Amino acid sequence: MTHAPLGRPTPVVSPREFAIAAMHLDHGHIYGQCNGLVEAGARVKWVFDDNPVRAAGFAAKYPGCRIARSEAEILDDAEIRLVAAAAIPDLRGPLGCRVMRAGKDYFTDKTPFTTLAQLAEARRVVGESGRKYMVYFSERLHVECATVATRLVDAGAIGRPIQVIGLGPHRLGTGRPDWFFSKARTGGILTDIGSHQIEQFLHYCRVDDAAVVSATVANHDHPEMPEFEDFGDAHLVGSNGTTNYFRVDWFTPPGLRTWGDGRLTILGTEGYIELRKYLDVGSGSSTSDGDVLILVDKTGEHRIDCAGTAGFPFFGRLIRDCLDRTETAMTQIHAFKAAELCLLAQQTARRLA
Amino acid sequence: MTHAPLGRPTPVVSPREFAIAAMHLDHGHIYGQCNGLVEAGARVKWVFDDNPVRAAGFAAKYPGCRIARSEAEILDDAEIRLVAAAAIPDLRGPLGCRVMRAGKDYFTDKTPFTTLAQLAEARRVVGESGRKYMVYFSERLHVECATVATRLVDAGAIGRPIQVIGLGPHRLGTGRPDWFFSKARTGGILTDIGSHQIEQFLHYCRVDDAAVVSATVANHDHPEMPEFEDFGDAHLVGSNGTTNYFRVDWFTPPGLRTWGDGRLTILGTEGYIELRKYLDVGSGSSTSDGDVLILVDKTGEHRIDCAGTAGFPFFGRLIRDCLDRTETAMTQIHAFKAAELCLLAQQTARRLA
Repeated sequence: MTHAPLGRPTPVVSPREFAIAAMHLDHGHIYGQCNGLVEAGARVKWVFDDNPVRAAGFAAKYPGCRIARSEAEILDDAEIRLVAAAAIPDLRGPLGCRVMRAGKDYFTDKTPFTTLAQLAEARRVVGESGRKYMVYFSERLHVECATVATRLVDAGAIGRPIQVIGLGPHRLGTGRPDWFFSKARTGGILTDIGSHQIEQFLHYCRVDDAAVVSATVANHDHPEMPEFEDFGDAHLVGSNGTTNYFRVDWFTPPGLRTWGDGRLTILGTEGYIELRKYLDVGSGSSTSDGDVLILVDKTGEHRIDCAGTAGFPFFGRLIRDCLDRTETAMTQIHAFKAAELCLLAQQTARRLA
Repeated sequence: MTHAPLGRPTPVVSPREFAIAAMHLDHGHIYGQCNGLVEAGARVKWVFDDNPVRAAGFAAKYPGCRIARSEAEILDDAEIRLVAAAAIPDLRGPLGCRVMRAGKDYFTDKTPFTTLAQLAEARRVVGESGRKYMVYFSERLHVECATVATRLVDAGAIGRPIQVIGLGPHRLGTGRPDWFFSKARTGGILTDIGSHQIEQFLHYCRVDDAAVVSATVANHDHPEMPEFEDFGDAHLVGSNGTTNYFRVDWFTPPGLRTWGDGRLTILGTEGYIELRKYLDVGSGSSTSDGDVLILVDKTGEHRIDCAGTAGFPFFGRLIRDCLDRTETAMTQIHAFKAAELCLLAQQTARRLA
């Protein structure tokens, strides 16, 4: 909820060239979204939220940011190029359509949709408006070792990638809002935190399309929250013959130093990569020591500490894409395919408990 | 092929109380099987193999071991309590039935069968003879951190276990016999090295029965061996609502210090365990440094070096079970269920490439 990494400022535009607004701050990811864009040169001109305290808290963090009285005040401002938002998940799709119809690009927290109907509508509005519906898949886009992994895979360091396994455990903690426990509002665990996982598979295995061959969801240990899914997993087969398995859960133990032991393993025909994203568990470090990449190839085992080395190139590319109408950060097809597959996984999942 | 760990001798019987024979040395695991039993007090009285050089090489390693002229010479020896064997996989089932019909217990290398018909016949012969058809699932039984994991899970260290993920990469290397590349002889990758994985799931999640909800096999990078499967994976759901995913492959890169980066993760409702079985990859050690167990629970992250601490209790228990007609090492139902599920996974697997 509070994952909002800071990187080195590497602006791709001049100070007044790219004005953005933030709306609907229901998930703390909005700070990660805006930090990434600001470091790449964006200026946060507006914020809007139904909760004035939350809006004021946000505005205080971004110099020059004004509090809007309504969504409309932002949508009517011709200077705003992009709207970043982290609404309650079931509101993200309709909000994006309003933003795009107002002629602006949209950058939502994951998960981008909770239903296939919302996705279909967004696909239609993208087609009509020519605007972008981009998604903050933070577990790849805002993790430096994931950036290094992309470079290594692209450079052929592990041969041809054939499989991705992702583990996305999360800490439940306390103080979650009511909507968090409503399946209708979050879409369920595979739709929500599963979306990160499927996006990583499509990315690293260069998959255009995939089939969900099996999926499960469960409420193993939270009977007091009957709609809540504390566990989910899925097995996918890419149209290029690659496979993916991921597990997502809310069982991070209290003794872990950070919110989750996120891992990703990319198997290739000539090597493999393991990402230890947020910590190197059991290393004995008294602080977080994440962003570790382990590469095993023909020549040996290589442990690469990525923190501070690779940055988050997604954000600058997204700004350039918005200005240049290119797709260097992420294609629209890719973002929507990841969204579609997580909704399909959720829809077909067996309920275990 | 050459994994044959040595432990501390901890005999459970007096020197002449438990005589065994070894037959059909087609897989190097026969040494691991016999080492484990000898350390627990067994005496290897006989060896038989069609290849006299291989038989002589084996006999030289076990003081007092004689070379038999035939299987019959062993099966007719009333002193022999158990026959250990590592035949070519498609011969393991029929051999076991001959051994049990001769009134002896059988201890085969995994995989125990290559077809469901062989399994059905062995189930029948076990019923008729009252003998045991035990299986050397070395990736749990002959790994000290796996022993420690059993103790921890049994003691409730991670709450209720709800999922197991296993990674079983193997090095192909050179010098494999022809049968290794024949699907009819090995049963395929899920039948062969997949059997370890399913056995671990049944064990750690306390599963009596399970459904294979999806499985894949592929030959991604060995076109010169068309029957060979260099990749396989499967997703299972236990009858108690737990899940399992495993990947097995023959893609261990040349740069890894050992034959495979075998891992197992056991997720529980109150913690999780990761086993780094044969090395702690990327640790910078110049030698193998396996048998690492990482436990994360309520109180913290615990890295436990298990090498030399836990031994391999399976072997002594198996000897006692043979003498006492108990099932403390492994139940027959468990061994056969693991075998059945790996055959079903193989049978239903999608071929990807």
